[in-house]
Amino acid sequence: MSLRYLEDFAVGQTFTAGPVRIEESEIKQFAGAFDPQPFHLDSKAAQSSFFRGLAASGWHTAAITMRLLVESELKPAGGIIGAGFDELRWPRAVRPDDELRIEAEILEVRPSKSKPDQGMIKVRTKTLNQNNDPVQISVGNLVVLRMRPAE
Amino acid sequence: MSLRYLEDFAVGQTFTAGPVRIEESEIKQFAGAFDPQPFHLDSKAAQSSFFRGLAASGWHTAAITMRLLVESELKPAGGIIGAGFDELRWPRAVRPDDELRIEAEILEVRPSKSKPDQGMIKVRTKTLNQNNDPVQISVGNLVVLRMRPAE
Repeated sequence: MSLRYLEDFAVGQTFTAGPVRIEESEIKQFAGAFDPQPFHLDSKAAQSSFFRGLAASGWHTAAITMRLLVESELKPAGGIIGAGFDELRWPRAVRPDDELRIEAEILEVRPSKSKPDQGMIKVRTKTLNQNNDPVQISVGNLVVLRMRPAE
Repeated sequence: MSLRYLEDFAVGQTFTAGPVRIEESEIKQFAGAFDPQPFHLDSKAAQSSFFRGLAASGWHTAAITMRLLVESELKPAGGIIGAGFDELRWPRAVRPDDELRIEAEILEVRPSKSKPDQGMIKVRTKTLNQNNDPVQISVGNLVVLRMRPAE
């Protein structure tokens, strides 16, 4: 599939990618760099934490979700450029050896009022584990190029 | 400072951390792992992109912000556990050699209605560069332990 411009997106389109497995060593490595808390770093300490066992940082899940979105057929022409999120939550912990995949759905497509060569799409992305439980739900707004500037 | 329970938080409290410098090599390494798009990986290709030069992945900025929050004096007793975000946006690109710091402000403190040993705090975190321009603004809800269960 070639690159998509604003005109190529429509409400209800879905895009998928994955699964990708997350290893315990990756969970600990990411946490060591960016979220050094016992429940992300130390399996034993994690047992008595809120998570009741080692859990990936939510930011690690978000980063893996981003990689899956880049690998999907979404492929906006100017790249995946997030203007911001209306919602981002982690309803369930990600555990070592979980296999994550994404389902992204286009919720809105709208041209920019001020920039004739741009528009915005609103995308809900669910990140699911091997049991089809959502581990992350986000609703984000992406900047997308228009094929033809408005007259 | 010792750990904080729900009773120790109050609306208007602020917490800071940083600055920390972000290197070009780190931007490219994070992008290679999680956000492999030309404007995060290749300085030359980035020139003709939306960003007009190499920019860090927003998820990299979010991950650095998390590390700064862990380093700050926020220190909730059970750890920093994000239930979700009401808002997350990146108003300005992060560039190689930017120096990032955070200012976090408590917006709400509320006990859980269903769980007597827990509550929630709402925190607005601004991530600022060396020119005091915000590069990320988030409003997140954190799960916090209560010192004494409600009667």
